[in-house]
Amino acid sequence: MDNNFKDVSTEDIKLIMQRSHAAFLEYQTFSAGQKATFLDAIAEEIEALGDSLLQKASEETNLPLPRLTGERGRTTGQLRMFAEMLREGSWVEASIDTALPYRTPLPRPDLRKMLIPLGPVVVFGASNFPFAYSTAGGDTSSALGAGCPVVVKAHPAHAETSEMVYQAIKKAIARTGMPTDVFQHVHGTSFETGKALVQADETAAVGFTGSTVGGLALLKYSSERKNPIPVFSEMGSINPVIFLPDTLKQNAAELATQYAGSITLGMGQFCTNPGLMLAVEGEGLDEFYKHLGGQIEQVKPANMLHAGIHEAYQKKSSAALSQDGVTDVARTSTKGVDIQAEPIIATVTAETFLQNHLLSEEVFGPFSLLVKCKDEQQLMQVLKTVSGQLTTTVMGTDSDLASHPNLLQMLPLLAGRVLFNGVPTGVEVCASMVHGGPFPATTDSRFTAVGINAAKRWVRPVCFQNCPDALLPVALQQANPTNIWRLFDGEWKK
Amino acid sequence: MDNNFKDVSTEDIKLIMQRSHAAFLEYQTFSAGQKATFLDAIAEEIEALGDSLLQKASEETNLPLPRLTGERGRTTGQLRMFAEMLREGSWVEASIDTALPYRTPLPRPDLRKMLIPLGPVVVFGASNFPFAYSTAGGDTSSALGAGCPVVVKAHPAHAETSEMVYQAIKKAIARTGMPTDVFQHVHGTSFETGKALVQADETAAVGFTGSTVGGLALLKYSSERKNPIPVFSEMGSINPVIFLPDTLKQNAAELATQYAGSITLGMGQFCTNPGLMLAVEGEGLDEFYKHLGGQIEQVKPANMLHAGIHEAYQKKSSAALSQDGVTDVARTSTKGVDIQAEPIIATVTAETFLQNHLLSEEVFGPFSLLVKCKDEQQLMQVLKTVSGQLTTTVMGTDSDLASHPNLLQMLPLLAGRVLFNGVPTGVEVCASMVHGGPFPATTDSRFTAVGINAAKRWVRPVCFQNCPDALLPVALQQANPTNIWRLFDGEWKK
Repeated sequence: MDNNFKDVSTEDIKLIMQRSHAAFLEYQTFSAGQKATFLDAIAEEIEALGDSLLQKASEETNLPLPRLTGERGRTTGQLRMFAEMLREGSWVEASIDTALPYRTPLPRPDLRKMLIPLGPVVVFGASNFPFAYSTAGGDTSSALGAGCPVVVKAHPAHAETSEMVYQAIKKAIARTGMPTDVFQHVHGTSFETGKALVQADETAAVGFTGSTVGGLALLKYSSERKNPIPVFSEMGSINPVIFLPDTLKQNAAELATQYAGSITLGMGQFCTNPGLMLAVEGEGLDEFYKHLGGQIEQVKPANMLHAGIHEAYQKKSSAALSQDGVTDVARTSTKGVDIQAEPIIATVTAETFLQNHLLSEEVFGPFSLLVKCKDEQQLMQVLKTVSGQLTTTVMGTDSDLASHPNLLQMLPLLAGRVLFNGVPTGVEVCASMVHGGPFPATTDSRFTAVGINAAKRWVRPVCFQNCPDALLPVALQQANPTNIWRLFDGEWKK
Repeated sequence: MDNNFKDVSTEDIKLIMQRSHAAFLEYQTFSAGQKATFLDAIAEEIEALGDSLLQKASEETNLPLPRLTGERGRTTGQLRMFAEMLREGSWVEASIDTALPYRTPLPRPDLRKMLIPLGPVVVFGASNFPFAYSTAGGDTSSALGAGCPVVVKAHPAHAETSEMVYQAIKKAIARTGMPTDVFQHVHGTSFETGKALVQADETAAVGFTGSTVGGLALLKYSSERKNPIPVFSEMGSINPVIFLPDTLKQNAAELATQYAGSITLGMGQFCTNPGLMLAVEGEGLDEFYKHLGGQIEQVKPANMLHAGIHEAYQKKSSAALSQDGVTDVARTSTKGVDIQAEPIIATVTAETFLQNHLLSEEVFGPFSLLVKCKDEQQLMQVLKTVSGQLTTTVMGTDSDLASHPNLLQMLPLLAGRVLFNGVPTGVEVCASMVHGGPFPATTDSRFTAVGINAAKRWVRPVCFQNCPDALLPVALQQANPTNIWRLFDGEWKK
């Protein structure tokens, strides 16, 4: 993945992180409202780049313009969401326990808690989201919103797009009078760059979206530090979907259409792509698979993000298809050229699946494997072998759901999000979203990468004991001047 | 630290953790109310042990009976607090974003989020809190409250006390019909035991309170796992206290009395013991130090927790006192015998302190070092070199505080709790408490070990998308049958 940008040197990274720390101290002196204006300004400057940004991104990533237009909207939407979070203010989780001077045997002091930022956050751009999970994406906007300066390492596959967004952020910094180094941008194609960024003294946290290999490497670099820091890597996921018998019988064709769409959406390059389907053998399942195959045949191959991803898709899908017992392959009827991916589905028995670990590995792209189980018990057995996931989905009629209580109980243990009668692709940005999940979906299941709570990755609580009211941060002052939700002596109040 | 118990074998640990995982699945099927009854029953069974428990603990730890009586109260209080947390129910942070079926361009699905337990938690008993941070202490009660089974490794220095508490928990398990293995108890004196517990496949999280060496070892073991797990180690802290000029001038004698008490409370064996004092040179400071010395002289030596801690105190305090520039040593006028610690204070100039890293190391016990600074600037310079702390305290009159805005701005960056005109010893158990802080105070500054929020270390969020109401956990059902606080379309509501 060559591009026109020089890799940042290890020496420069040291200086960059020192500057980031200095910017952290300065950024803290700005009010929530000023930070909100800054985030809004980034959104505006990105929009001001107009079509040229979309065209550059499309050139670099092969993603079609409508998709990129949507993703830009999501990106600016996220920036404005965190701006709104700052203006509204309740995100700091203010909690107040007032003094009990007459309590025996000991009085209780006045205790007031809120969240404060951790410090400089290093963000690694994602290949599959050149806007929404890259330069000014979810990690960056949540960190800036939380009060942390950010250093982004551009993804080499869309380095010029990243540069354009960087220039937009620089304009927003200048326009709103923010510290120059509140956002910095570097290029790098080697693991050494990542290592130096993660291991710099001033780095306080890391955000990453990408491959398991990449995510685990960053975690390892972090574990070699003198002081541990949070590393939030969002990595692979095969997002198991369970089709229950009654719905297969009743809705085979509709389910097939729905899932052909989800499996091939964006050429399968979403982290929530349904790569594993599970069902009990039967007429309904056969019917569903026949329809699904028919739909997949009609999907035209399309370019993947870059040659490396295409090569990996070819290799991993071929490997899966060459395993003993993998049968009934259905694929697009059009031959893919260059770096076009060919949508493929295949089936395997649960027995075979349970014996072959390779079959549960992610094939990043428009590929999905249907595991045919003898009965519900075997289906549960398969689910138990599946590692942590971003999502898991159950498709079933009311009667299906009512007759599978054990299965339903198991699903939350498996993933960060459990869907009913839908497709896992498409991630809503809101307070209740969890885009996370047990390892290896992420390196810390206690946090989400999408939605308002993504900011919680970059903060820590601090408690003020018997602090004079005038010296408290506004969020904790007795009069609640910014009118935020606070847990006041055990009650949520404004 | 020999005792009468055999070290658990590595093979047994594997079985124990497997049983813990099985208990996890079973424990989940109990209601919040049933879990609450269980926690209450543990508290009752501990109380039913009566004085024999206190006597055993006093024999093993040398802590006086009144202190142990208080600590037992805190322990049962914590158990009942988590029982109350379960009954009240809002701790799951329920968040609901209802469907917007007519939103364009895409409808919003119904999304509902809550916290669920991580799985088996391994807890290492603390030497300095045989009840409140050991067998049925804060880590155990918060984990059981969060829905996680617990495996405790007894601290070898009070293994028999730990056994007695374990028997009480077993009775509570039997009485309330909980899964037998929801709590298990092992002994071990080697690092190998800790390693095997942290590295077992089923271990989902670790809680530790103790030395930096121990805490870092557990973190390292965890980093060698295939799947990363949260390790919350609460380790050393020197809890800097800043005395400002005006209060020193006005209140030298009172401050001395207050701090002589805090430095020597429990023979300095609290994690929040004030081991570092900072002030600008002047008449007020001289007067304060003179009084403080006078007070320290009068404090009688007393036994430390065990011979190992006493030996470390002797070694570390002697090492500190032997450094160039450490002067004006004041100590108890009574000679300590056997494993009695002698309270000691000493002074050093900021210049010397800044040049000698050893002087900022924790001396666990009744020892405190006063750093005399030339001016405020030098005091700030010293503070900047201090690593992460559990607490930091500022003592000052209104006029002192008003004239030191830069100093006050810096304090939250340094610690999990910032105190004004008080002593850091004494940690209130409540929602707004933060007993945590930046490394090396803990391994993850985003969490607290004390108070309701201690349970947040052992949980993760899960989101249900378009789940039929009847199949949702009660906390997320539309009618809010348990009447908990929920973030409902952005508003906190019951």
